[in-house]
Amino acid sequence: MATDSSPHAIVIGSGSGGLTAAIGLTRVGKSAVLIEAEHVGGDCTNVGCIPSKSLLHHSKQGVLSGADLLAKVRERRTFLRDHETEDVSTMEGLDFRVGRGRIIGKGRVEITKPDGSTDIVTAPNIVIATGSRSRPLAIEGLPEDRVLNNASLFELETPPAHLAIVGGGAIGVEMATAFNRLGSQVTLIEYAPNLLPLMLSAAGDIVQRSLESKGVRVIVGAGASSFDPATNSLFCKPAGDGPSVAPVENVDAVLLSVGRLPNSEGLGLEDIGVSVDKRGMIEIDERGRTNIEGIWACGDVTNRGGTTHAAGAWGRRILRSMVAGPLPLPAVPPMPGAVFGDPEAASVGAQPVEVPSDVRRITIPMAQIDRAFTDEVTDGVVIIDVRKFRGTILGATIVGPRAGELIGMVSLSMKTGVPFHKWYGTVWPYPTYADALSQAVDAYIAEALPSVHKDFVSYASGKVKRLIKR
Amino acid sequence: MATDSSPHAIVIGSGSGGLTAAIGLTRVGKSAVLIEAEHVGGDCTNVGCIPSKSLLHHSKQGVLSGADLLAKVRERRTFLRDHETEDVSTMEGLDFRVGRGRIIGKGRVEITKPDGSTDIVTAPNIVIATGSRSRPLAIEGLPEDRVLNNASLFELETPPAHLAIVGGGAIGVEMATAFNRLGSQVTLIEYAPNLLPLMLSAAGDIVQRSLESKGVRVIVGAGASSFDPATNSLFCKPAGDGPSVAPVENVDAVLLSVGRLPNSEGLGLEDIGVSVDKRGMIEIDERGRTNIEGIWACGDVTNRGGTTHAAGAWGRRILRSMVAGPLPLPAVPPMPGAVFGDPEAASVGAQPVEVPSDVRRITIPMAQIDRAFTDEVTDGVVIIDVRKFRGTILGATIVGPRAGELIGMVSLSMKTGVPFHKWYGTVWPYPTYADALSQAVDAYIAEALPSVHKDFVSYASGKVKRLIKR
Repeated sequence: MATDSSPHAIVIGSGSGGLTAAIGLTRVGKSAVLIEAEHVGGDCTNVGCIPSKSLLHHSKQGVLSGADLLAKVRERRTFLRDHETEDVSTMEGLDFRVGRGRIIGKGRVEITKPDGSTDIVTAPNIVIATGSRSRPLAIEGLPEDRVLNNASLFELETPPAHLAIVGGGAIGVEMATAFNRLGSQVTLIEYAPNLLPLMLSAAGDIVQRSLESKGVRVIVGAGASSFDPATNSLFCKPAGDGPSVAPVENVDAVLLSVGRLPNSEGLGLEDIGVSVDKRGMIEIDERGRTNIEGIWACGDVTNRGGTTHAAGAWGRRILRSMVAGPLPLPAVPPMPGAVFGDPEAASVGAQPVEVPSDVRRITIPMAQIDRAFTDEVTDGVVIIDVRKFRGTILGATIVGPRAGELIGMVSLSMKTGVPFHKWYGTVWPYPTYADALSQAVDAYIAEALPSVHKDFVSYASGKVKRLIKR
Repeated sequence: MATDSSPHAIVIGSGSGGLTAAIGLTRVGKSAVLIEAEHVGGDCTNVGCIPSKSLLHHSKQGVLSGADLLAKVRERRTFLRDHETEDVSTMEGLDFRVGRGRIIGKGRVEITKPDGSTDIVTAPNIVIATGSRSRPLAIEGLPEDRVLNNASLFELETPPAHLAIVGGGAIGVEMATAFNRLGSQVTLIEYAPNLLPLMLSAAGDIVQRSLESKGVRVIVGAGASSFDPATNSLFCKPAGDGPSVAPVENVDAVLLSVGRLPNSEGLGLEDIGVSVDKRGMIEIDERGRTNIEGIWACGDVTNRGGTTHAAGAWGRRILRSMVAGPLPLPAVPPMPGAVFGDPEAASVGAQPVEVPSDVRRITIPMAQIDRAFTDEVTDGVVIIDVRKFRGTILGATIVGPRAGELIGMVSLSMKTGVPFHKWYGTVWPYPTYADALSQAVDAYIAEALPSVHKDFVSYASGKVKRLIKR
């Protein structure tokens, strides 16, 4: 395929979203300028999924010492980063530039190179994929040199004797799991009433029980407020009227994992009028367009979801729109999430705490699955929400071994519009954890069949409510 | 629900198929007689999936000694068996009988109890679910006390110092994996050119490389022919013109896993005229009916597939037909298979060695998946066959971590009729092994899109060929 050498787009940021858009263009015979200020691969390759999953894997093996293992994780990360850098540096149709990009006009981006000199590149499209960074949190008295985030964590030479982790979302849970395996004493603190606050509370509860059984101290419903450097004590303040929390003693390092801030500054967005929300996230539409024609954005820097896979999916949507123009685009697919602790926890779709009347929520404890019996797994759950009568799958939460793979089955069915009752009669190999989903279908059919009439009434009334809401 | 106390069916055998049919009847308000000659739960609970997967799990943990571990596996097996026995003994609507069943006339079964006395039970339906047993193999000179099968294996007090396994299918591969972990020297012998001969050869090749890397000697393309008790040497004869094979020295025990024989004798089938094929397997139709009205069969004793999940699926089909009569029944769903070695290998559907012209075969090496990178997995594959133009998924082979779960996604799509191109755009959580399937869809779309016309032609010509074949 002949490549059009005048760039079709300037992509700022070479993480999952940016790489997808830039490389995608070269695959359809167009060229792109790709600008990266730090390392190719973005957070995922450098300070996210890759080092964290490597750490989880190697810490589970239990072969290497803490220091060797941390070195190994860096080595793997750097290997992949170098590989990706080589790829983008040599790819036909890709003009890879090291530096900071700033939009200075319609289709014009100024690149400030490491030596301070500047270049200007132009193209009809600009894709902003600059990602996010760890959100700082002020903890009174805490010395800067004891603070870690998802980037500095992977530069540690040895595991801290006692690691306190503030923020019990995906990063907090995964790193508590890994550093507990490395022999660190670990305390995990979450302000919400349960870990993994983006999922149904059952997920966080199960993960908490598991961490506690391994010796991790878990504090929920409280925030880290101050630190006494004389005694190395971290003090927590309960949320609302919660009970007081005993201080966390002898803390060597504090990992902050309390959320992300979008890297939307310094890009010239204000000058050109690109809309950002009050959190600083760039607002995009279903095609990944900002409010300014020719400027697109994807990934953590936007208001439509972070994570590597979501950024990649948005990169694809942008690519399709950039290449195929106004052709219809399929609906935004469900974006699952997974947390790779022990056990894994995963979810997709929306699951309100209160189950609406036209929704049937099916709950299957993992413990009743035969594979859980052979593997001595006693905790875990599948919770799936299905619209009554029509059987539309609305969302699911899965906690247990391999949950990250199992949620894909739900994600696929939601994307392809297969209602849950059509799953009935599918055969899964025995004994697998998929049996939990099989039992969920059986339970759904057993509950739904005798109440088709009632189901229709709640489905229809729920539909009316949803119509009114709009 | 009121239970009809006169039995609707007599079920002979309480494995996966028999339990599904019998318990299923009680769930719809009917009653059943359930006859078991040995242990409730069939091969799966007693000498199959449950002890083998327990053994695989515990041997991977590496905590217990070989002897303790084998005792633990028996303890788990017995726990589950007792639990299931208690269940069927106390279930309303279920008349559980210990003894051997023999059909003595239309709707009449004679039960010979352990004390030799007999009972006769009657019902309009009889379900034969008597399963199978290990197929014996004559190896000249091999003393009986050195021979093991899938039943006696789990009665071992200690792992043999050197275990030779004859037959490299599911049982052979799983037990080679487990006993290697237990510290036994293991030699695995398969007559076919590759292990796992029911799958595409790539599966067996990958599993062979993995076993060999762990120190298992794998011999393919040869059969065990004789044994010298003076030197404990097992001699193998190459298949066809294959190269000669060095004798297997110092063999302590030989596990036979060369297939199954149906338990179709002693049931009175000849007297009543129930058709069996030349292998002794009962012939059934799409509803699980034998050629004799009112006599049904499912599971390993039939010609339509063994395995626990397939037996259960056939038990369900029989149940539906017994209860709902001639109402239409959905097509027989695809029956996946999985082998839980390291890595797991799984397949579903039909994948001929030669790819037909109207089929596109997509192959994705696991090594190119990011999760494989973080987990240091360097081998494994996804091979998926898709009908050109229409996108119908015909079959898949998956080898790698969690393959047993991943194959479920394919099985579900095949059952619900979702063509492969509709998978495109689905988002799976990152980094998971499902990414291999995602990459397969991408590859399929990338190959199929530019050749829609050619695809239509090969699809149409393939269709003509299939029509002529019928």
